[in-house]
Amino acid sequence: MEKSTPVPKGFRFATVEAAIKKPGRKDLALILSDTDAVMAGMFTKNAVKAAPVRLDTERIKSGRGRAIVINSGNANACTGAQGLKDAAETARIVAQSLLVPENAVYVCSTGVIGTPMPMERIRAKLPELAGLAGSASFDDVAAAIMTTDTFPKILSVRKKIGGRQITISGICKGAGMIAPNMATMLGYVITDAAVGKAALKAALTAAVKTSFNRITIDGDTSTNDTVLIMANGAAGNPPIKASSADYAVFAAAVAKLCYELALLIVKDGEGATKLVEVIVNNATTEAEAEKAAFAIANSMLVKTAVYGNDANWGRLICATGYSGIAVDDSRVDISLNGLMVCKNGMATGRDVEANNRLRNKTVTIVIDLKLGKGSAKVLTCDLSEDYIKINAEYRT
Amino acid sequence: MEKSTPVPKGFRFATVEAAIKKPGRKDLALILSDTDAVMAGMFTKNAVKAAPVRLDTERIKSGRGRAIVINSGNANACTGAQGLKDAAETARIVAQSLLVPENAVYVCSTGVIGTPMPMERIRAKLPELAGLAGSASFDDVAAAIMTTDTFPKILSVRKKIGGRQITISGICKGAGMIAPNMATMLGYVITDAAVGKAALKAALTAAVKTSFNRITIDGDTSTNDTVLIMANGAAGNPPIKASSADYAVFAAAVAKLCYELALLIVKDGEGATKLVEVIVNNATTEAEAEKAAFAIANSMLVKTAVYGNDANWGRLICATGYSGIAVDDSRVDISLNGLMVCKNGMATGRDVEANNRLRNKTVTIVIDLKLGKGSAKVLTCDLSEDYIKINAEYRT
Repeated sequence: MEKSTPVPKGFRFATVEAAIKKPGRKDLALILSDTDAVMAGMFTKNAVKAAPVRLDTERIKSGRGRAIVINSGNANACTGAQGLKDAAETARIVAQSLLVPENAVYVCSTGVIGTPMPMERIRAKLPELAGLAGSASFDDVAAAIMTTDTFPKILSVRKKIGGRQITISGICKGAGMIAPNMATMLGYVITDAAVGKAALKAALTAAVKTSFNRITIDGDTSTNDTVLIMANGAAGNPPIKASSADYAVFAAAVAKLCYELALLIVKDGEGATKLVEVIVNNATTEAEAEKAAFAIANSMLVKTAVYGNDANWGRLICATGYSGIAVDDSRVDISLNGLMVCKNGMATGRDVEANNRLRNKTVTIVIDLKLGKGSAKVLTCDLSEDYIKINAEYRT
Repeated sequence: MEKSTPVPKGFRFATVEAAIKKPGRKDLALILSDTDAVMAGMFTKNAVKAAPVRLDTERIKSGRGRAIVINSGNANACTGAQGLKDAAETARIVAQSLLVPENAVYVCSTGVIGTPMPMERIRAKLPELAGLAGSASFDDVAAAIMTTDTFPKILSVRKKIGGRQITISGICKGAGMIAPNMATMLGYVITDAAVGKAALKAALTAAVKTSFNRITIDGDTSTNDTVLIMANGAAGNPPIKASSADYAVFAAAVAKLCYELALLIVKDGEGATKLVEVIVNNATTEAEAEKAAFAIANSMLVKTAVYGNDANWGRLICATGYSGIAVDDSRVDISLNGLMVCKNGMATGRDVEANNRLRNKTVTIVIDLKLGKGSAKVLTCDLSEDYIKINAEYRT
């Protein structure tokens, strides 16, 4: 990780240690825009939502904000009325310290579910966090929000828009409980581009659809998933509107950034040894393609076969079959890293060669259903003994 | 395993070695009723169905049959038109050898998907198999149909019906790819009771609903699942009709037998160290309770936590939340082996005590949603490193 990831103008960062996680780890982070920023957000679809998700879901309706406070180590989920109070108090203390409106501060949490927030320790550290704004890098924030992640995830891109150079940077954390609808995933995208509210929301929605919502580690959608985007306009470009020509450039850049960030999450899946791309082509609809791709990507049998370099395509066609979509197995073609192992639903007899191709660190599975024009790509990882070890001992 | 499991009158069994599996293992088995039997069957809901499933689905419409031929080691799935011919030829050879009508013989296969059946070896052994009818026990059949199972699964029950003693015996195999709708599961129930077609079908349907369809090892529904029941009437009781008083006794006995067989499958789940009962109570409907129970039972995070003796109920409420059913987390109670760890969506602070209770070989998870009257129980197992080992190397 290089410390010098370029970041947009007009943002400052801070991290402190509040002993929420084990000692010696920064676990409280701040992202601050120097000026009022346009914001958009997307949140978990889990019916059980963490307290900060409930708070942010309300606040994001304004489409504006100044700061995001993030803690790792405790999810503040299943913490009842006290959890909501704790999230609100966290925002309030930071707002007072920064002299910004309380509802301009967003709160995110990740970690263990069902444990009350250690507010005595957090409360004591929040003014210090606010006071340190500008002392840390975005890279530091990426590191502070990690839980079982093994490396921080940060990416940056620069574009020319409206005659100005704009920067878009993003960080995220993942590791386990990653599934459709963003799992235990926190993602933050910041930009100095000037962007209208509707355009920003549209760009984020489109980007998340093909990135954070198309990854899965273990099929478990968490209570805390949050993706927030802030655009503070410090680049000085004419504001991007959904109807403007610049929108396509901006939206594509955000989508690419989110896709690459999602890729990092999958590469860092708990216990993962390989990145697996599941592509389903020519399904009846895109929704059906996505459904089959997720069934395959979430199949423990598929994931263990990839881990074991076993080109067991029977498990692939089986998962396609039980996904609930239209399938005519006599038409199904399956290829593994470019090698066709199943043609029209039957073996091509190239399994041994295919086993060898599975030794690649990236495995691309393509299922051609030959029924329609719907396609979807889902990213996942293989399943190794280490996933079990990590998750059997997560809280111990 | 005792060799003397009581079996119904009028059935004979045989097993031979056809080298479909590794040498030294019986892999071809026969169940034969001495007289024409009433039969019913249930088959996988996977859109990709193995050849023998297609064959049996047609034949079971007659509601009658004489024999079942089962091979392990090859699923005869994704084998195209040749696979269908092979299944039909298998039935034909056995029928000719036994001098019974061809359509009175059912065929089942379990094993690897996508590999053509080694018909030259099977063909040569089928007359021998038929000729050996009566030389083996039902226990031997239970052993011959095993794949990654570690023990044969056989149970028997006796009841007095219509003044006669009737016997119901059942065998099954499972291990991996076990999920709703019967997964890589083969189950055979035989009885000497005289039962009408409609009554037999009704009893089997009801029994499977709360047994084989309520278990999951890994969420993967296979291409080959089959449950067949044969009733040959050798006990001499007046035939049981769906409207007769005896029906309830018979149906309850079949349901209990199937439930106990399903329990054996879960206990023998690949790599399993514990049996896990997931009970969801007071959901809006039974279907919603079942949906949540399966989400929990299939969650890798839940299964690894149980394996690691970690009373991480956050993962339980999280899975309930993403299952797609109606949940108000402020009402949810969760207990683990009788100890309440979550009350009204919040911790009771008894996690350490709960961790200890998870050391039991049976773990009962009860989720009370307090929304309605729908309840469901799903059986599963924990997830250990051994599941990965078994499935990463299944074909190697």
